[in-house]
Amino acid sequence: MSIVVQKFGGSSVADAEKIHRAARRAIKTKLDGHQVVMTVSAMGKTTDKLVALANEVNPNPPRREMDMLLTTGEQVSISLMAMAIEASGHEAISFTGGQIGMLTDDSHTKARIHSIDAERIKRELDAGKIVIIAGFQGVTEHGAITTLGRGGSDTTAVALAAALKADSCEIYTDVDGVYTTDPRIVPQARKMDEITYDEMLELASLGAKVMHSRSIEFGKKYNVPIHVRSSLTDTKGTMIVAETTGMEGIVVRGVTLKRDLARVVLIGVPNKPGIAARIFAHVAKHKIVVDDIIQNVYDQGQVANISFTTSLGDAKEAVACGEELAKEIGFKQVELDENVAKVSIVGIGMKTHTGVAAQMFNALSEAKVNIQNINTSEIVISCLIDQKDGEHALQTLHAAFDLDK
Amino acid sequence: MSIVVQKFGGSSVADAEKIHRAARRAIKTKLDGHQVVMTVSAMGKTTDKLVALANEVNPNPPRREMDMLLTTGEQVSISLMAMAIEASGHEAISFTGGQIGMLTDDSHTKARIHSIDAERIKRELDAGKIVIIAGFQGVTEHGAITTLGRGGSDTTAVALAAALKADSCEIYTDVDGVYTTDPRIVPQARKMDEITYDEMLELASLGAKVMHSRSIEFGKKYNVPIHVRSSLTDTKGTMIVAETTGMEGIVVRGVTLKRDLARVVLIGVPNKPGIAARIFAHVAKHKIVVDDIIQNVYDQGQVANISFTTSLGDAKEAVACGEELAKEIGFKQVELDENVAKVSIVGIGMKTHTGVAAQMFNALSEAKVNIQNINTSEIVISCLIDQKDGEHALQTLHAAFDLDK
Repeated sequence: MSIVVQKFGGSSVADAEKIHRAARRAIKTKLDGHQVVMTVSAMGKTTDKLVALANEVNPNPPRREMDMLLTTGEQVSISLMAMAIEASGHEAISFTGGQIGMLTDDSHTKARIHSIDAERIKRELDAGKIVIIAGFQGVTEHGAITTLGRGGSDTTAVALAAALKADSCEIYTDVDGVYTTDPRIVPQARKMDEITYDEMLELASLGAKVMHSRSIEFGKKYNVPIHVRSSLTDTKGTMIVAETTGMEGIVVRGVTLKRDLARVVLIGVPNKPGIAARIFAHVAKHKIVVDDIIQNVYDQGQVANISFTTSLGDAKEAVACGEELAKEIGFKQVELDENVAKVSIVGIGMKTHTGVAAQMFNALSEAKVNIQNINTSEIVISCLIDQKDGEHALQTLHAAFDLDK
Repeated sequence: MSIVVQKFGGSSVADAEKIHRAARRAIKTKLDGHQVVMTVSAMGKTTDKLVALANEVNPNPPRREMDMLLTTGEQVSISLMAMAIEASGHEAISFTGGQIGMLTDDSHTKARIHSIDAERIKRELDAGKIVIIAGFQGVTEHGAITTLGRGGSDTTAVALAAALKADSCEIYTDVDGVYTTDPRIVPQARKMDEITYDEMLELASLGAKVMHSRSIEFGKKYNVPIHVRSSLTDTKGTMIVAETTGMEGIVVRGVTLKRDLARVVLIGVPNKPGIAARIFAHVAKHKIVVDDIIQNVYDQGQVANISFTTSLGDAKEAVACGEELAKEIGFKQVELDENVAKVSIVGIGMKTHTGVAAQMFNALSEAKVNIQNINTSEIVISCLIDQKDGEHALQTLHAAFDLDK
């Protein structure tokens, strides 16, 4: 019998009514002839509330105890979900991560999954029950409770689907799938029927918030078909798969805009081996998260300008860090631009198509959008532009690559 | 090194400040040279809120899932307590019931403890940590999460003390010990320094709410010295022990008043073998909780009046039940008195002293309190009286047996 894993996020189980709605969906799937495994997040804002409570007691709580605390949120959800299913006259059983042998390493607050006891789950499925498993949590070989970090419930769902060799892993969310771009900025944005893991990974790292990168990586590794869909409608959502059917024809799959970036430029850095490593080790020590790095040499390769982007919130700290480096290493000056945005096109088809970059630059030029920096990878091309041009650039590229068709 | 078990109830861990206060007490005990094991209840009204949430989802929730839900309350408390202790620069580690092998039977919502893995706890104590264990919960041999029912955290504390052969089990509460009677009614009530398990059991069943009977039974069985004391002061509280030092001298240890009782009298019941059994089986089927039963035969033993007391809330149902029985068995009539209270004196010294009952009846008579029914056991004498005489009777008996001295 085919197995379906269904994951419901915090907003989909935020109150008794929503829990019943999710329960009805699982029951319907079971009545359609599948075995159903559900995984659920903590209700609504529960996790935030628990974090606030912890900080009230200890501003720097031990991570083992943080995991002990936060995992209660999902435990509440699974028990209520089982109660909801039983209230509708169907059999259900809930399990914590530990109870189904979701073994992880001991990196508390960001543990990695080692293995899952699939047989334990299958026994309950074969007994006719809907099995409900707490997302986000696991247990070490010594029985300590761990959490999987951000996006952990998605990771739980995909890992369960892999371990159970499930036919599909359904991620229920408050949007009805993955879009070609942000529909709030480009009304012509289209929901995609399919997207590859690689493309989805790039979209996720570029700010599409549908799923966390880690769960997509997991899906890619174990080739789990992931179905992102709405918890409110029955419409088919977006399938995330290894290869899409009409792949050859589609060069650019989506366009993204990342706003509120700052660009820091280190000017006249001596171009010697080890300098870049030294710079970014120093930046990391300041706990500044760097987005893109671009280096251009000049003066016959004697000196370079090195620029990096970071979130606007980290900008001041990044400049201070740059000035320390200017003194230490000996380079001219540090520049800061706080009005930067990044527009990107993503598509696995770029690998086999030429002229995509030129087409992008041309479209932006015709739209009078000035390009500051360019950065490319195998399936992504990104341009840094002025913040004020962001939305216009996104709309332009969405139309230029026919994504509205 | 001596081991001390400290239990903090829900009101003693109701917010961050109170959690820190409890943490300081454990730390002080550790600095005094003891190994400390803490057990804590869910914060404040958490359990009530979780029960309400469950009922919203399913008015008749499966008991296994109820246990899964409710145990999260204590798990939150233990992690916060560990964080509080670490915030003060001391080492702590929290454990769920399952993690320290608190094995129970599988009677969900009222499980009984089979065994505890004391070695696991001792390893952490020997490593210099304060060990914090979730109260009220355990786990079956198959890993299902169970709860111990009402008063479960007290039972956890006493069971831990027994398993660890602790020197003392301290129950922290919002009163500073066990009193000779209710101080809200009798201002002369005195805190006792010592009381025996048997006396405490009777006081608990007569409505003293300091500790639940079950945990006292456990303490008696394993001879665990229990120290009931205030979480707000450093004053010594009341020790519950097998034998008290000045035992011979004290005949009556405490007096209690149980209000809001109803008395149902079945009049003219044929006095044949099996009749009483038939009556109370029927009463139990109606889920009516019976307090005392008194039977008096008359007419040369041909007929009897059988009366029983129950809570006021169950009175109407009890009468309906009595009327069914009158028809079925064939007896005259059913009487109901809804203005009944029970006043009792408790003391292990009664076993060896005579005239105690007479002294009680005499005191009540002098106070013009009419006695309706009398019921006695080895260490308790109870009188049913008119509800309106309750407080006066309590004050009278407290003075008559010199409990204020």
